[in-house]
Parts: sequence; structure tokens; C-alpha cells
Amino acid sequence: MPFNRFVRFISTDGKTYTGDAILPPGTDDARLATKAIVITGDILGDYTVTNEIKDIKQLLSPLSWDQIPNVRLLGLNYEKHAIESKMAKPKYPVLFFKPVTAIAGPTDPIPVPAIAQIDNETDYECELVIVIGKKASNVSEAEALDYVLGYMVGNDVSQRSWQIKKGGGQWSLGKMFDGWAPVGPALVSSSVIKNPQELRIFTKINGATQQSENTSDMIFGVAKTISFLSQGSTLLPGDLIFTGTPSGVGMGRNPKYWLKDGDVVEIGLEKVGTIVNKVVYEKSVKAKL
Amino acid sequence: MPFNRFVRFISTDGKTYTGDAILPPGTDDARLATKAIVITGDILGDYTVTNEIKDIKQLLSPLSWDQIPNVRLLGLNYEKHAIESKMAKPKYPVLFFKPVTAIAGPTDPIPVPAIAQIDNETDYECELVIVIGKKASNVSEAEALDYVLGYMVGNDVSQRSWQIKKGGGQWSLGKMFDGWAPVGPALVSSSVIKNPQELRIFTKINGATQQSENTSDMIFGVAKTISFLSQGSTLLPGDLIFTGTPSGVGMGRNPKYWLKDGDVVEIGLEKVGTIVNKVVYEKSVKAKL
Repeated sequence: MPFNRFVRFISTDGKTYTGDAILPPGTDDARLATKAIVITGDILGDYTVTNEIKDIKQLLSPLSWDQIPNVRLLGLNYEKHAIESKMAKPKYPVLFFKPVTAIAGPTDPIPVPAIAQIDNETDYECELVIVIGKKASNVSEAEALDYVLGYMVGNDVSQRSWQIKKGGGQWSLGKMFDGWAPVGPALVSSSVIKNPQELRIFTKINGATQQSENTSDMIFGVAKTISFLSQGSTLLPGDLIFTGTPSGVGMGRNPKYWLKDGDVVEIGLEKVGTIVNKVVYEKSVKAKL
Repeated sequence: MPFNRFVRFISTDGKTYTGDAILPPGTDDARLATKAIVITGDILGDYTVTNEIKDIKQLLSPLSWDQIPNVRLLGLNYEKHAIESKMAKPKYPVLFFKPVTAIAGPTDPIPVPAIAQIDNETDYECELVIVIGKKASNVSEAEALDYVLGYMVGNDVSQRSWQIKKGGGQWSLGKMFDGWAPVGPALVSSSVIKNPQELRIFTKINGATQQSENTSDMIFGVAKTISFLSQGSTLLPGDLIFTGTPSGVGMGRNPKYWLKDGDVVEIGLEKVGTIVNKVVYEKSVKAKL
């Protein structure tokens, strides 16, 4: 039996389960679900949808760190965002990576460590996230969607001074921090989302909309991205691909807006749901530079 | 009992084992070892050095893909290489990542896929590779070496046109291919190598020396690198950090030299040993761009 909205969660008994979220009436956002049908086994391999129902106390990232071999991300994949970033529209996908330690759950705080507070330029990026379901090597654009297990929404949290000015041109230093890639609320099956290029995507900061676009505006769509990244480089089950952010990030606003301690970042993707993460500045640790 | 030179290998019975390499007389290069004392358990956790001896038929990468959460790499970490690359000497470590699918064994071929043959600019980079042994978060330079399990030597194989010209400024497209990070021959314990900043490192192409320097010339040494990368970003057991390459890469030569089908690349690090990988151009697959 296929799943619809795969979630990983802590239940009222304190234990961690995986399951298919039971949606409350009138919403398709698994973040609002309070119950799930338990799934046992490995969602990336053999699994069973049981008859057991459990209460959801806290949602976790749908996949755990050890289920995610690689976290790939695209930059500048929406034309208006490339313009606001003062960078050229790319001819090929612009690829970078995050460590798996950046992956966090749909309601986890976003910790801003001491090193990221130095220039205080922490920014948000709403993104559609692809979850690869089976090994993909040299696949064509036409067959690429067959390799997708499902989709999540994610935030590619970015510290702009480390990303752009202090990293020697490579973006990783401003992208690498613990918890800087919250994802969720569910891994929504590709059987639910047959066309990933028609979904509204948005960011609200403290309730006010800052990014609002449609995945139809991507420069490299999901199929093209998977095909391109699989040329000579095998994508593995559980690999995540963040597909870039539309315009409206803090860096592109006038005046620029940087995430403050206590800000609430809500990021949503049509049919997938929302993640809501609170920004928490770490105060006790000093950066050792 | 601690290990000295941890290897993973296929034995004459066709099975895969891990062990402590038994060095032949007169060498400290585990690539030349024909036998190992079997180690059972998890080298990143609890393990046992047994009394059993097995023949080594083929060495594998000391850690398997599922033991490696992240593969970090530094760019421009030797001053003369920064100059030959026509890039500025970095003020902070320049960080990028490879997917785990790039990791390969010390004698595996380096496959050059169709997409990397388009401009035919495949290059070699000899590097000291750090293996993290325990979780490291916000560690100081003084305590950083306590988090090292050991060292390997590696080749950060790089396709320069995808790395520098076609990737929108991010290097990953030219670094991501399957098997483009061979490592080994052993994971040499930090109890064997107490000072990682005094080791001769070299590359020979078809027997002729092309890179030859000492790790004392690193801009950011091992301790500084670990401390810096752990600020706000937790390093996990099994994480690899490639520490950058010295001068003498093919891109820096006059005329430039690109790896040809059949070239044999030998990379060595004092006290750690050598890896020898043959370049194999893939001929059957067409790039789907």
C-alpha cells in the first residue's frame, strides 16, 4: 500500500514512529495533523502501512540523518531571485551542498551560532525539496520523475556575509550551520504530486508574506535537475535536492532584512504543507576564530 | 587495543573484512601489505582487534559510504597553489563538499564520464584527508586534534571547466562525479601520526613527479581547520575533511596538462602510504544535457 504524507514523529508515549499523516478536515498540511497511521520498516526500501494509529506529539524531519546520504542544493534557480542577488541567470544548475547536520524538523528552532552573529546577516529561502527514491545514474529528463519518492518544503537558511563575502566565493561557510535546513512537514508522495511545477511556494516572517511565487517559474525544473545532476554522479535513495528559492529574500529587500532573535519563519508549499521555525540566537558560546 | 593502519579489503575468500595492515619489511605503505589482522566491530565506535590474519586481495576505501556522513574539502589551502590558480590567498578556509558517491578505494579506476569529457579538463589534486573520530562542536584549536581518528591520503579529482567556468562560480559541478575522491590506502591512526604538519605529499603521473610539497606549508593546518569548521556546525564521526592541494596541478602547468585515458595517478603522503588509480574514460554513455 502506498503512502501519501510520510511523517516521522514523537508520540505521547515518548517513542519515535513513522507513519502516514491523517489530515484534519479542510487542510492538506501534515503539520496540523494530530494522528498518523503507523508505518513500519524502511520508507526507502520495504515498508508496511499498519492498522495502528498513534498521536503525534512532535514532528521530526521525515528522514533521519542516517537515511540521507547527500544534501544537494541549487542556487539562483528562479530568474527574479538571480536578479535580486545581482548574479547572472545560470546556463547550468548552480550546485552546492550542506552537511546532513543542517537537516532539522518542521517545528524545530533555527539556532544562530556565535560565528553567524558576527555580521548578523541571517536570511531565509523557501524551497521545494526533492527526495530521491531509487539510484539514478545518467537518467534522461523524460524518465527523471520515476526516481522521485516525494517532495518536502525546506528552508535553505543562509548567512550572507559568510556565504558571499568571506567564503572565498564558495557559499558553504554561510550555509553549513546545525539546523539550517529544516524540512517537512511530511514527505509527500510523488503519487500525490504528479506535477511539481505548478505549486505555490511562500515565506511569511512573523505572519507577513515575504516570498510568494510558483514552482512553474523555476529555471531548471525537477526533471531537468535530476537528469543533469545524475550525469556521471549517481543519486542515492534518500538524497535530498533543494531546488532554489524565488525572489523576496531578506538580502533582496530595501532596506535589507536580517532574521532577528525570536522571528517566526513560516514556509509553505502547496499540497505539501508548512514548516514553522523560530529563530533562536545562541548566547552562551563564543566563536573561536 | 588501538589500531595503526586500518584497512577495509576483499580477501581471497571473496568476503570483505576490516583489519590492521601488516606492513612488509622496509615500508609503511599499507598499499603494499598482503595480510592484515582482522578487526571486528565498528572502527567509529566499539571494535576488537582479533588474532586472526587474512590475506588482502583488494583494498577498499577504509570507510564505506554509509560510514561517512559528510565529505568536506578545502580549496586554496597552500599558498603556491592559490597563486597558480590565479585566486587570492584565503583569509578563512574555503569550503565545499563532494557527495559520498565520489569516495573510492586506493586502487580503483577513476571513471571520466561523458559530461566530464566535453571540455576534457580533468585534473588531479593530492590531499591529506582528516577522519573525524568523535562529535566536534565549537572546539578550540588547542583541543581539535583530540577529535581526529586518523588520516588518509586522497585525490580531489576535478574537472576544471565545470568547476570554474560552467558552475556559476560554485565548484561542485566539476568535483561531484562517481569515484572522484579515491582515498586510502589505510586510515592511519592519530596515535601513529602525532603531528600532521610535517608530512611530504606528492603526485606522480605515469611515474613522473608533478606535485611535491610538505603539509607544513598548509595555510590552515589540521587543528585550525577542525576548530573553524566546527563553529556552529557539528562534525560527526566518520566525516572526512580533504585539506587542499599544493601547487603542481595540471591546470597550473605550462602547457596545461589534462588527465588522459589510461594515465596512472599515484598520490602519496609520508607515513600514510600511496593510492594508485588509473584514469578510465567512459565510452558507452552519452551525456544527456
